Amino acid sequence: MGRWEPNAEGRLREAAMELFLERGYEQTTVADIAERAGLTSRTFFRYFADKREVLFVSSQAFEEPLVEALEATPAEAPPMAAVAAALDAFADLVGGNREHTRARQSVIDSSAELRERELIKLASLASALADGLRRRGVPDPQAGLAAETGIAVLRVAFAEWRDEAVERPLAEVMRASLADLTTLTAAAAG
Amino acid sequence: MGRWEPNAEGRLREAAMELFLERGYEQTTVADIAERAGLTSRTFFRYFADKREVLFVSSQAFEEPLVEALEATPAEAPPMAAVAAALDAFADLVGGNREHTRARQSVIDSSAELRERELIKLASLASALADGLRRRGVPDPQAGLAAETGIAVLRVAFAEWRDEAVERPLAEVMRASLADLTTLTAAAAG
Repeated sequence: MGRWEPNAEGRLREAAMELFLERGYEQTTVADIAERAGLTSRTFFRYFADKREVLFVSSQAFEEPLVEALEATPAEAPPMAAVAAALDAFADLVGGNREHTRARQSVIDSSAELRERELIKLASLASALADGLRRRGVPDPQAGLAAETGIAVLRVAFAEWRDEAVERPLAEVMRASLADLTTLTAAAAG
Repeated sequence: MGRWEPNAEGRLREAAMELFLERGYEQTTVADIAERAGLTSRTFFRYFADKREVLFVSSQAFEEPLVEALEATPAEAPPMAAVAAALDAFADLVGGNREHTRARQSVIDSSAELRERELIKLASLASALADGLRRRGVPDPQAGLAAETGIAVLRVAFAEWRDEAVERPLAEVMRASLADLTTLTAAAAG
């Protein structure tokens, strides 16, 4: 097996999804995935730390565009507007293929260890967004609160987009969810 | 070892915390915990499904009071006001002993598997609160959004209360955090 296989990462991800859907996540080994992709387990571990990671975009590829979008908003934009820009970037990143998203989620929901990994990824993203807000001068606890709330909106809107009967653009569902949140908090305060 | 040891659960929790702080979580076994508590591993597993659980209140003891508080708010109370009542119940439940909370958190932060378990518990709580809101007639996505946002507030306010230099009542920190959230969302919408 050559050291530099063309698109090895993509082939491994595709093979993994096929096998997880065919046999189940628990019943699939890294060796199975590598074999289906025509690669070796050693190559698998050059791209992914463990079997779980093959279902997740790397933190770098996932967090950086969101943090960059947050940082690119004008300095005077309020914290939740900067968070909204990060959610737009998330929509750009993952809002393209709803069928694939649904299949992937069915695999994640089938395994406690995958659900845990998903929660860890979202907690890490919340932390990265909070750091981005702090660099913009947003103090604590507002920075943490805006970031954690943004992730709450992301989770709810992402699930809504994924599961609703008629597809809308993910960015639109995110914006509607943020507007709902404003209404919800205003109603409790009023 | 008798079948019904007095306060076996409390003794096991206390022994576990002592050992985790002395030796580290990874270096402590269930057998060590049971021995320190003067009990057997078999007794340990009557109370806890695994080593991780000894650091967490059972879902029943943790979720039920919060869901009950949510359900006890007047039917006409807005969703986030019902969630705020659940956060008050959380403050009653865990806001009593900050030193213990800090020690416990230092153990959780030392282990990836404990951080995962903590995230799972909070996700389960969010889900229970969302179900409670749905039973009150709150539609989706508002029910999920109010519940997830409530957990975001809980996480941020709990960490703030735990780590700030001068102690304030946890319920007060929670309420301030909810008020901050209202300000944050209104600023982005305005």
